[in-house]
Amino acid sequence: MTPQFEQRLAILRESLSKAGQDALLIFSLDNLRYLLNYSGEAAYGIVTQNALYLITDYRFIEQAQHECVNEQIDCQVICRDRDRQTLGAAINIVLKREQAHRILFESEHISVSMWQAICFDNQEMEFTCAPAMLESQRKIKDEWEVAQIRQAAAISDRALALLLPQLKLGVSEREMALELDYQMQRLGSEGISFTTILGFGARSALPHCIPSARQLQAGDLIVIDFGAVINGYRSDMTRSFVAGKADVRQQAMFDTVYAAQCAALASLHAGLAAHEADAAASAILKASEFAGYAGLGLGHGVGIKLHEQPFMGPHCRDVLQENYVVTIEPGIYIPGYGGIRLEDDVQITQEGYLSLSHAPKQFEVAI
Amino acid sequence: MTPQFEQRLAILRESLSKAGQDALLIFSLDNLRYLLNYSGEAAYGIVTQNALYLITDYRFIEQAQHECVNEQIDCQVICRDRDRQTLGAAINIVLKREQAHRILFESEHISVSMWQAICFDNQEMEFTCAPAMLESQRKIKDEWEVAQIRQAAAISDRALALLLPQLKLGVSEREMALELDYQMQRLGSEGISFTTILGFGARSALPHCIPSARQLQAGDLIVIDFGAVINGYRSDMTRSFVAGKADVRQQAMFDTVYAAQCAALASLHAGLAAHEADAAASAILKASEFAGYAGLGLGHGVGIKLHEQPFMGPHCRDVLQENYVVTIEPGIYIPGYGGIRLEDDVQITQEGYLSLSHAPKQFEVAI
Repeated sequence: MTPQFEQRLAILRESLSKAGQDALLIFSLDNLRYLLNYSGEAAYGIVTQNALYLITDYRFIEQAQHECVNEQIDCQVICRDRDRQTLGAAINIVLKREQAHRILFESEHISVSMWQAICFDNQEMEFTCAPAMLESQRKIKDEWEVAQIRQAAAISDRALALLLPQLKLGVSEREMALELDYQMQRLGSEGISFTTILGFGARSALPHCIPSARQLQAGDLIVIDFGAVINGYRSDMTRSFVAGKADVRQQAMFDTVYAAQCAALASLHAGLAAHEADAAASAILKASEFAGYAGLGLGHGVGIKLHEQPFMGPHCRDVLQENYVVTIEPGIYIPGYGGIRLEDDVQITQEGYLSLSHAPKQFEVAI
Repeated sequence: MTPQFEQRLAILRESLSKAGQDALLIFSLDNLRYLLNYSGEAAYGIVTQNALYLITDYRFIEQAQHECVNEQIDCQVICRDRDRQTLGAAINIVLKREQAHRILFESEHISVSMWQAICFDNQEMEFTCAPAMLESQRKIKDEWEVAQIRQAAAISDRALALLLPQLKLGVSEREMALELDYQMQRLGSEGISFTTILGFGARSALPHCIPSARQLQAGDLIVIDFGAVINGYRSDMTRSFVAGKADVRQQAMFDTVYAAQCAALASLHAGLAAHEADAAASAILKASEFAGYAGLGLGHGVGIKLHEQPFMGPHCRDVLQENYVVTIEPGIYIPGYGGIRLEDDVQITQEGYLSLSHAPKQFEVAI
């Protein structure tokens, strides 16, 4: 099983052709990774019907030649001397050589300043914004991509299992987050998927809680949201706990979130409008005593980027397709009191979904 | 000792006034941290002579009110409902309220797509690109900023001291990098300053070596380039070692880099052209037997960003000023053989410099 670079390129070229355009300028490093296998920095891609180029400089040239020129990818790597040639001039040479004139560019991934400089050297070209062209294509994962996310998710599962016995009275959020990050990397994760969110007590209600010196107390709600990275692909999982025995309100919160997640998961299948999955969870949250505290949005695509298309909220116009990989993460957040969120990464199938994360959803942890 | 927000704002307002402009739109999160103490995401700043605004949304509103509305900073925080109001419309309301018409914007920190959308809602405004306005101001650090970098550098020093006894035959680059990252965070670092560069043997010649499974062998050169973060401020230090006894060539390489770094450090003082410090190191590297393998550029500013102004290369037009904080990092890189780099963070003073990093420059490590 290998990444399907040929197929990715073929799909993009068909889109280019349909749009009546000669070339796409790629400025997103995530898209360069997806299309050309390039994982470095400071690089720019050009795709035409007949050729593939990567422009970089001496710092990344060895890496680019290794990653982008091989049996799978036939890219022409250009080493630009940044002291002597502008990026615009380097692009101009390629576009002229390829007789490309009508050019799409990734307008979401280039700054106004850089784009002005590029245009200065390319005044004869006809440029058109191409927002999210490859991002849209990236929604459907190939088998290899799903396998990477599955492996990242499995590492997260195992790291959490190693962490749970350490959740004892008096440990700090920061200690626990650091321990989790360390375990994921010992298990093979390339860094961490994002800054681990880990909150105790009232702090668990903060959607982006940055771990602090706050120490675990009996009865605290605990939210842990984290992920691993394998070959550039990310996982993203949340589990929520209570330190010791749950009281009635806490158990009701957990049961409501659990039911909302189950309802959303049960609704999933290729062909479902993403906002309908959101509505399935939302119906349960809104019918509960915690209606006023439900989080916004059900989840998001996950892959090379942590948050990518589709964004599964009530206004989402996307229809789920086979091999989308998305998070399903309903939550309840009561300011000053605490929060509960459950999140899994799932692969959409024709009939339903396959969960990529498998950590148990136990609520009470012995302290 | 506290961050000098009032002074930072006064300097910016003077620059605005000199430029004959009514307002600056800030799109860089680093600049929002510098000017408004904001450390979240998804926020945009507007500065006029009389007012300060931060536009964000429900996810970061609590954090923004906590960080940007207090005794030191008097910012008006706006919570935008992203489903009902475009960013351009929110900006337009503020600009009209403040009767601002001639507007500078951070053209290096906004994408073409986002800028087009903002302009659509602000057609009556007169916008002008303002590249690197705050970046230029950020070159001079106040006492509090220097103290943060010093503290981050001290953590790096201590973490390295804890790592060195673990550099034994057979350990992998990845294990050692993970251990170093873990120790820095245990010592109080907020995450890591950047992905730790750690290479053994021939891999030490890669300027951006990503730690791999390569195991330490006797006689390997070892390069470790890493840093800590305190209150958003970064340190950046490199030390180079040999596993066991150095041979004649290795010792000559180390002595050359050490002499080049000493020469550059000795040249430093407020008023020196940055390229002259580069030339001081370069003269020694070029006169050595390793002339063909010298790295490009001497160093860079360091602070909220890892790499910030000034960039100390042969083409740098900057003149060093008191309280710049820069790295001094000459190196020799022999492809297929190995590399050596020494890097310290230093504060420029009237008479010379103060080093913020203090890890010893021993070369041989017992394995």
